[in-house]
Amino acid sequence: MGIFKFFNGTLRVNDLSQSLEFYRDVLGLHEIAKENDTIYLGCGADSHYDVAIKQGGTGIDVFSLQVRHEEDLKYFSQKLSKLGVSSERRSDTDPGKKSVLRFMAPTKHQIELVYATERPHYLHPIVGHKGSKGLDLMDADHITLHAQDVQGLAQFLQEGLDFSVSDVFEPAPGVWGAAWTHASDFHHDVAIVGTPEHTTLHHYAFLLKGFDDLKRSADLLAQAGYKLETAPGRHSVGGNLYTYFFDPSGNRIELSAEMPRADLSAQPRVWDDFPTAFSSWGIFPPESFGKGS
Amino acid sequence: MGIFKFFNGTLRVNDLSQSLEFYRDVLGLHEIAKENDTIYLGCGADSHYDVAIKQGGTGIDVFSLQVRHEEDLKYFSQKLSKLGVSSERRSDTDPGKKSVLRFMAPTKHQIELVYATERPHYLHPIVGHKGSKGLDLMDADHITLHAQDVQGLAQFLQEGLDFSVSDVFEPAPGVWGAAWTHASDFHHDVAIVGTPEHTTLHHYAFLLKGFDDLKRSADLLAQAGYKLETAPGRHSVGGNLYTYFFDPSGNRIELSAEMPRADLSAQPRVWDDFPTAFSSWGIFPPESFGKGS
Amino acid sequence: MGIFKFFNGTLRVNDLSQSLEFYRDVLGLHEIAKENDTIYLGCGADSHYDVAIKQGGTGIDVFSLQVRHEEDLKYFSQKLSKLGVSSERRSDTDPGKKSVLRFMAPTKHQIELVYATERPHYLHPIVGHKGSKGLDLMDADHITLHAQDVQGLAQFLQEGLDFSVSDVFEPAPGVWGAAWTHASDFHHDVAIVGTPEHTTLHHYAFLLKGFDDLKRSADLLAQAGYKLETAPGRHSVGGNLYTYFFDPSGNRIELSAEMPRADLSAQPRVWDDFPTAFSSWGIFPPESFGKGS
Amino acid sequence: MGIFKFFNGTLRVNDLSQSLEFYRDVLGLHEIAKENDTIYLGCGADSHYDVAIKQGGTGIDVFSLQVRHEEDLKYFSQKLSKLGVSSERRSDTDPGKKSVLRFMAPTKHQIELVYATERPHYLHPIVGHKGSKGLDLMDADHITLHAQDVQGLAQFLQEGLDFSVSDVFEPAPGVWGAAWTHASDFHHDVAIVGTPEHTTLHHYAFLLKGFDDLKRSADLLAQAGYKLETAPGRHSVGGNLYTYFFDPSGNRIELSAEMPRADLSAQPRVWDDFPTAFSSWGIFPPESFGKGS
Repeated sequence: MGIFKFFNGTLRVNDLSQSLEFYRDVLGLHEIAKENDTIYLGCGADSHYDVAIKQGGTGIDVFSLQVRHEEDLKYFSQKLSKLGVSSERRSDTDPGKKSVLRFMAPTKHQIELVYATERPHYLHPIVGHKGSKGLDLMDADHITLHAQDVQGLAQFLQEGLDFSVSDVFEPAPGVWGAAWTHASDFHHDVAIVGTPEHTTLHHYAFLLKGFDDLKRSADLLAQAGYKLETAPGRHSVGGNLYTYFFDPSGNRIELSAEMPRADLSAQPRVWDDFPTAFSSWGIFPPESFGKGS
Repeated sequence: MGIFKFFNGTLRVNDLSQSLEFYRDVLGLHEIAKENDTIYLGCGADSHYDVAIKQGGTGIDVFSLQVRHEEDLKYFSQKLSKLGVSSERRSDTDPGKKSVLRFMAPTKHQIELVYATERPHYLHPIVGHKGSKGLDLMDADHITLHAQDVQGLAQFLQEGLDFSVSDVFEPAPGVWGAAWTHASDFHHDVAIVGTPEHTTLHHYAFLLKGFDDLKRSADLLAQAGYKLETAPGRHSVGGNLYTYFFDPSGNRIELSAEMPRADLSAQPRVWDDFPTAFSSWGIFPPESFGKGS
Repeated sequence: MGIFKFFNGTLRVNDLSQSLEFYRDVLGLHEIAKENDTIYLGCGADSHYDVAIKQGGTGIDVFSLQVRHEEDLKYFSQKLSKLGVSSERRSDTDPGKKSVLRFMAPTKHQIELVYATERPHYLHPIVGHKGSKGLDLMDADHITLHAQDVQGLAQFLQEGLDFSVSDVFEPAPGVWGAAWTHASDFHHDVAIVGTPEHTTLHHYAFLLKGFDDLKRSADLLAQAGYKLETAPGRHSVGGNLYTYFFDPSGNRIELSAEMPRADLSAQPRVWDDFPTAFSSWGIFPPESFGKGS
Repeated sequence: MGIFKFFNGTLRVNDLSQSLEFYRDVLGLHEIAKENDTIYLGCGADSHYDVAIKQGGTGIDVFSLQVRHEEDLKYFSQKLSKLGVSSERRSDTDPGKKSVLRFMAPTKHQIELVYATERPHYLHPIVGHKGSKGLDLMDADHITLHAQDVQGLAQFLQEGLDFSVSDVFEPAPGVWGAAWTHASDFHHDVAIVGTPEHTTLHHYAFLLKGFDDLKRSADLLAQAGYKLETAPGRHSVGGNLYTYFFDPSGNRIELSAEMPRADLSAQPRVWDDFPTAFSSWGIFPPESFGKGS
């Protein structure tokens, strides 16, 4: 019952064919489908797309969360309705989506709850795998949104979608500068970073197997002429490993590994210093890290 | 609501002081408490013990599953009662256990549902860590039981404890040779291997961060004079990485990594060939692997 | 002055086009040249081939050692002559070989000393790299020959080519069952395993960056339908990490990592038990490991 | 014949007992001997010390290079003499040094050529290992000196000690800002960074097995309250992996891995942009990186 995991999202890109080269030939994603101005790309372990790219602009267009049962869509539709949020039920909107409940968060982010056509049960590193290319991305892992009202969006995810808050960054008491939330047993599925600007996305994260694959990814990106924005490290918040870089449109991509199991029923941890929360190893984030897309 | 994860277990050992040396000095666990003939040892990231060793015999004495809310104990007590299984409510039985529901599975395995005294929320590799020793064990990960009636025990876990079955090994149609079950978003929390003998445990598994730590563990075990039973590899069932060795009493220990996220609502996968299910890399399990403790 | 490293070798294969598929599409080597019945393949970090495959038979056809200076060829020609071994000077025999000194070892192995056309100085994981495919093989690392007279061949390498012996396996005092020899600062460049049969090759080894890449290689081999012969482990002799599998013709390939720096002027270490020498982790080699090609 | 490898060095420290805590308890080195105001510490794989700490000041006091044969000391004494550099022959000066040739480089760095008492042949990760503590340091790997005349010191190493230059950083044509030199088959044993100041040391480097161990080291340093100066990355010069931090006296320590095999007879590679030479991944060095001790 409920939400199983972050499913996928559609990124806005300036130049679709240049972006396809990046996501397919550098990152190594497989092209699954193309419809009008949108290309759907998957990591290859199952038939689902893990990110889509859509012509025009930057940032996140829409993102999806996967529910366990088709009935969950009705359950959440009613919950949202009680919050005064209208939602729309659709079918077969994108490849792999059998039934969809679509609605808009108070921050204007488009969100979909998806009951998927196929159920891979679990992503196997070998069985059914279509072959590893590029960075050996395993799966879409989580999304970190940009929002002007962090606490408002976190509250919406809790009340409307049964999320829990894992950690909060409070630069001043009661002020939510960032929040990490989850509906699964992993530390964060959807995170939120505050911004005064009108950007929608801080970063879009893919799962890698471990730190060694972060190194391999940085090497392959370098061979293809792409630089990292942020050197590999370990976040204090969540404790997961990270490295960050930009797609050709300036959308930030994270490679994440070692995301810990986290208890949905526990109380949030609060952090009051951003550099401390950012890096366990004492590394400051680069100045650019404040910007989104 | 419900079961969060495999919590810990108590292994029977032939020689408590020799076993303490192994678990503390070789594996690197921290001694948390000693009560009569039982020593409680933890990985060090939180205050909980991750395995206990108890004087006398071999195999598993009792194992615990952690519930999210104290009310869950009542819920499961009623479920079990409907199955005709009586359970006993206790307090403060072992270090870290605030409330306990104890009962016996049809296979005579002693099981506890535990509401823990403290809630670490998530195990951080750095914050709050008491220092890494030995193999860098992260957490108790899962248990694989020996049972004469695999299907019966799997059914009990499903009906009594809301587990799902991830994978089944069927050497012949309808015959369950082994089953992997979970209550969390990970592929298996409790697995069951069939045996005609009266052994209770196939192996007790600890979580490691990745394949490199399996290598480091094998090196440190070798330095201390301990051999592996089974070389590092990848299971087809579950897709997790493994290596196996024995404690001085002959209890088999697994070091596991890369356990995938798995959907509790998906249908089980069925395997009919054991070597194929055992290793994705074409490596046969050693003959000893059929034995338990 | 002298020999810098193991350079490359030509493997005999039963079916050239099937083998090309394996070496190029599964292992990920780049096709550098094709001449008659021989295909030259490189890891991609420099312009040199790292293995060639030649139609007909199995085993090693010829292998090359790279000298530092062109004058070294004359020096070694004279040394060999004093041992009664005639050598032939050639030019441009294979891609990347400017000057070649070719001769036959007492065990009938064809050996070449090569002054290369280009000098990459050192293989960079990024700069000048043509892109990583397949297993991320870094370089040809070493060769392990099959020979009926291990001590004779080791003595020839010492006296004729200034090699040192790192380690010896003596199943009985004075009987050399295997020897590991080097001309570089690494533990072995050419190893020799005794056999009563007429096979020429025990295995051909490629360099990988580390244990994690052995895992990745095993996963990719499995995806392509190839099994490992020998699970990943650590050799006691040399201390390097290994895994072994076969090409479609039955030539054994090793993936090797963490080969230690070794002192050319030190005395050999002697081992009297093969399983102990084979694995530091207590894993027995599979029975098939005695066979060569 | 000649120099086998960088052997070890003595760092000046402000507070010997505080430094001992750092090197022994945090880094995990083993205390081998204490003489007056100097403590000798080893990684544990052999009986030799890998770094010594000496009360008073900061920077490098003296460093040693290991020769293969005792006669090499005489050979180098004569070579140095021709350059007008006097050297002194000593015995048993420090633990593990049987015969020593000591002299001063034109930059006033004290250098020793050492014929060691014991010959481990090669450092085995298991055999003879005294147990891994802390960061799993394998060996002293190389030293990077601070000097006002980079080219002068590089020329001295070439002419006096038969070193080769691997790479040069030339901020302007003919101006040597930094140089990497080696006497072994590895890319650099002694590197030199230019400075207008009177500092003697840029960093002292230890060998680790791979990138995963850099992560583990950063985690353990963080647990002990130490921060990294420079996040893990890959150098363009040499291509090795790195991370940097400071000891309590401000001496910079590097953890290095994947140092490539390099040809002593090849021509140096020249780099004209420091950030490009520093990081293959596009990461700028921190501002502090210009300072030494």
